[in-house]
Amino acid sequence: MKRLAVFVSGGGTDLQSVLDAQQEGRLNGSVELVVSSKAGVYALERAKKAGVSTAVFLKKEYPSAEEMNEAIIALLQEYRIDGIVLAGYLNILTPNIVRAYRNKIINIHPSLIPSFCGAGYYGLRVHSAVLSYGAKISGATVHFVDEGADTGPIIMQRAVPVSEGDTPESLQERVLEVEHQLLPEAVALFCADRLQVEGRIVKIKE
Amino acid sequence: MKRLAVFVSGGGTDLQSVLDAQQEGRLNGSVELVVSSKAGVYALERAKKAGVSTAVFLKKEYPSAEEMNEAIIALLQEYRIDGIVLAGYLNILTPNIVRAYRNKIINIHPSLIPSFCGAGYYGLRVHSAVLSYGAKISGATVHFVDEGADTGPIIMQRAVPVSEGDTPESLQERVLEVEHQLLPEAVALFCADRLQVEGRIVKIKE
Repeated sequence: MKRLAVFVSGGGTDLQSVLDAQQEGRLNGSVELVVSSKAGVYALERAKKAGVSTAVFLKKEYPSAEEMNEAIIALLQEYRIDGIVLAGYLNILTPNIVRAYRNKIINIHPSLIPSFCGAGYYGLRVHSAVLSYGAKISGATVHFVDEGADTGPIIMQRAVPVSEGDTPESLQERVLEVEHQLLPEAVALFCADRLQVEGRIVKIKE
Repeated sequence: MKRLAVFVSGGGTDLQSVLDAQQEGRLNGSVELVVSSKAGVYALERAKKAGVSTAVFLKKEYPSAEEMNEAIIALLQEYRIDGIVLAGYLNILTPNIVRAYRNKIINIHPSLIPSFCGAGYYGLRVHSAVLSYGAKISGATVHFVDEGADTGPIIMQRAVPVSEGDTPESLQERVLEVEHQLLPEAVALFCADRLQVEGRIVKIKE
């Protein structure tokens, strides 16, 4: 059984998709800790309803991002966390935490990486960029986190068609539906030790 | 009825998909001219079998790319060409031809633009780059040509899953199947005057 921490910054629908998968017995793992970059977000409510411990880390309370991440690492070690799921977490992970959990941090990004990703591409900004570009296919990507912005090895991707008349909000809604399928599937594969990373390539073992 | 020119550089399977669509009555248009950047390629045979005129333009026979494209424009005007389809054409279109046929030049690219496109991304190099990156979804894009490399307004896109164990060749084969569906569909919409370009956005009119 893998012990998981989920990192959040907002409403927590991606978190909910992982909690639901655990509840329904689809994960060989359990969410032991929810870390938020903001107080008072609804994701923290979801954690409490599921009986999961929560912690809030605010940037302004630390002299540097590195030191905040050191404090997070200490808490993760206390909880004996095996894997981290970034579910819309907006704070930056500094290299110390990436190194400590190499190929053990899973992120979901609301586009088909390498399109519409990297610095500045988060939330609705991603979907606005897709629509401004005039792309006809978008999607979602689950990947391991490395030192770059959305550059780590890709675990799974799924395409979502752009519709004529889409707004950033309507496209986000359709992509979120796919995220809520894709993220628990990827976390289940991680918990089952079925993800094998070779350089940039992630293979799914039988 | 739109009068079309198809530009080729190789085997011409994309050209064949357009000729087949015309033959089967799926196009309100006809291929009147095939322009090749190389002599002796099989695409020229396909054109001759279909009774279509052919012309070969070799870079080395012109003092500059601009002057070669001027000669091509003159031939297109002689044939009263309404639209151009780039079907694996490897020569560069200079701005004079792009301006003369603004939003009338259709290109097919074997990836989901803006991923894996631009200078240096052609043929098997595209699919090699997709596999090296570890992407799990690729696809094909049909777009209008502007002055940039693969930067023009996107008409249609379709996703193609990457399989474990794919080689550049096996991925190319699956993407080509999709190209052969997508390209005639887009050309048919163009011939039916159903493509409306607003800035970077291409809408399909009813």
